[in-house]
Amino acid sequence: MKKLINAVDDVVKDSLFGVEAAHSDIVAVDHDNNVVYRIDAPVANKVGIISGGGSGHEPLHGGFVGLGMLDAACAGEIFTSPVPDQMFAADKLVDGGRGVLHIVKNYTGDVMNFDMAAEMAAAEGIRVESVVVDDDVAVQDSLYTAGRRGVGLTVLLEKIVGAAAEEGKDLDYVADLAKRVIANGRSMGMALSGCTVPAAGKPSFELADDEIEVGIGIHGEPGRERRQIGTAAEIAQMLVRPILDDLDYRGSEVIAFVNGMGATPLIELYIMYNEVAKILQAEGVRVVRNLVGNYITSLDMAGCSVTLLRADDEMLHLWDAPVVTAGLRWGK
Amino acid sequence: MKKLINAVDDVVKDSLFGVEAAHSDIVAVDHDNNVVYRIDAPVANKVGIISGGGSGHEPLHGGFVGLGMLDAACAGEIFTSPVPDQMFAADKLVDGGRGVLHIVKNYTGDVMNFDMAAEMAAAEGIRVESVVVDDDVAVQDSLYTAGRRGVGLTVLLEKIVGAAAEEGKDLDYVADLAKRVIANGRSMGMALSGCTVPAAGKPSFELADDEIEVGIGIHGEPGRERRQIGTAAEIAQMLVRPILDDLDYRGSEVIAFVNGMGATPLIELYIMYNEVAKILQAEGVRVVRNLVGNYITSLDMAGCSVTLLRADDEMLHLWDAPVVTAGLRWGK
Repeated sequence: MKKLINAVDDVVKDSLFGVEAAHSDIVAVDHDNNVVYRIDAPVANKVGIISGGGSGHEPLHGGFVGLGMLDAACAGEIFTSPVPDQMFAADKLVDGGRGVLHIVKNYTGDVMNFDMAAEMAAAEGIRVESVVVDDDVAVQDSLYTAGRRGVGLTVLLEKIVGAAAEEGKDLDYVADLAKRVIANGRSMGMALSGCTVPAAGKPSFELADDEIEVGIGIHGEPGRERRQIGTAAEIAQMLVRPILDDLDYRGSEVIAFVNGMGATPLIELYIMYNEVAKILQAEGVRVVRNLVGNYITSLDMAGCSVTLLRADDEMLHLWDAPVVTAGLRWGK
Repeated sequence: MKKLINAVDDVVKDSLFGVEAAHSDIVAVDHDNNVVYRIDAPVANKVGIISGGGSGHEPLHGGFVGLGMLDAACAGEIFTSPVPDQMFAADKLVDGGRGVLHIVKNYTGDVMNFDMAAEMAAAEGIRVESVVVDDDVAVQDSLYTAGRRGVGLTVLLEKIVGAAAEEGKDLDYVADLAKRVIANGRSMGMALSGCTVPAAGKPSFELADDEIEVGIGIHGEPGRERRQIGTAAEIAQMLVRPILDDLDYRGSEVIAFVNGMGATPLIELYIMYNEVAKILQAEGVRVVRNLVGNYITSLDMAGCSVTLLRADDEMLHLWDAPVVTAGLRWGK
């Protein structure tokens, strides 16, 4: 294993010091709890939006803290849920008097720990609502989940819901909006390589020189099947077809998101975007916004995922709203 | 070789179709010449800023086309200079009547071809000035250069000079500013792995499991030395010391840029940024702006580089000016 780290046990801590050093105009870090939060938190009379999960998916979630997106993000160890104390600390940091929304990716540990934190917050008089993202169509249950995994849609959800909170919407409204986004979003991913968790020291799995894993999760957990690698056009079909089979996007306006898993060069992601866009056009799906890049990663995994979100006018308005974070900057 | 591509010969073309499909609100693409240009080019009464070079370094340069940065970028084949016809086509697309600045990274082919394009443009009555970026302190001459290579500083230069042109500065002013940026910027990079050019089909070089290449260029060309991997803190020293030995930044205000080579996860880049910031603080170098991420890459190479730019008040003002591009969004 070759990585730019000091020690296996210091990876998350050290990187949070780096985030703080680089982005002190946007965020601060509670190093006791590994919570990244807006420097102006709590924002009075604004619903607080928090998320979090295992580290190793950067810029998700810490890179999405800032005006118009998250108020705080809780960083667990690599691919490991944060503990309830971290989330509770975040709740207290961001509650501006109108309650807090927890955005939870559907992994057993995350769901359980965010639930526990919500109870702790309630006991202190902080109202919490929770939503669980489960957009991955690849597998019904998986190594770490009951039900579908939460993946790429999380990025789009955090942007849209964050903008609504910034505009002053109340907690019920924001939670309902989040559920609407979740109901209308689907994702599917693939890998060209495994990823190496520092503490493990070796790749999560090995693929042959001509092999890919289709339906991969964001922790190197197994997908649907291993197949021989195809062209970008063929791989785009492997990702987009299962999404369209799961939810009929024909005739809809969508935000299309091609995400890199961490080690895939941008030039390849644009080739994939081109193929995805061609399929969608042929199917009568109207792409009205898009995002291409490494936004929810799996350490040094090579590969990509596709996310589609059927977006109504309100979601598009919120997608276009200002955002000032380290990981996602303003611009359509 | 496993890559998300259709065919080796179509990599650049296909990716440019993807860029156009994703960012038609910002750029258009001249597919005959592989030139990415601002949709509003030529901008009347504005100096045109163009750059270009071999592909494989994305988001550089095409991702930096847009308001406040480049007017056009010429994409060569992977790691291969564009030809003069491409640059001349770009000159004609962007000249708004006040001339064009060529930003050239110091590689023999690029320098020669941009020179030839400048002559072609002059013959058509387009005034062209050129600047050559040569910020890499690693080696004096190299496989592809007479003199130092142009690397990370190019990103900072394109932002600053692009903002000056947007503010209406004339060609002489913008060219002088560019030379001032070049005089005050230095870089040094390292690799944990080689990169694989699609047409070659195998990594540019192989490193042992505990080995790194220090002073690497952005094409997998050799650096200063191969060494055993160290901690992030040790690697930061290997990169920052040669920069400080080359130019005395003590007491200066700088923009500090930690760049990923393409396959290195963001979490590791933030660990590196933290170590770089600590060294600079100890040396009395004042970091007043920073940039952390994959901005000038080398396909799927793992590794990073550090760039420092001694920035005066004008440069900082221009760094903070609005920018609307696919690869670099506005925000300090």
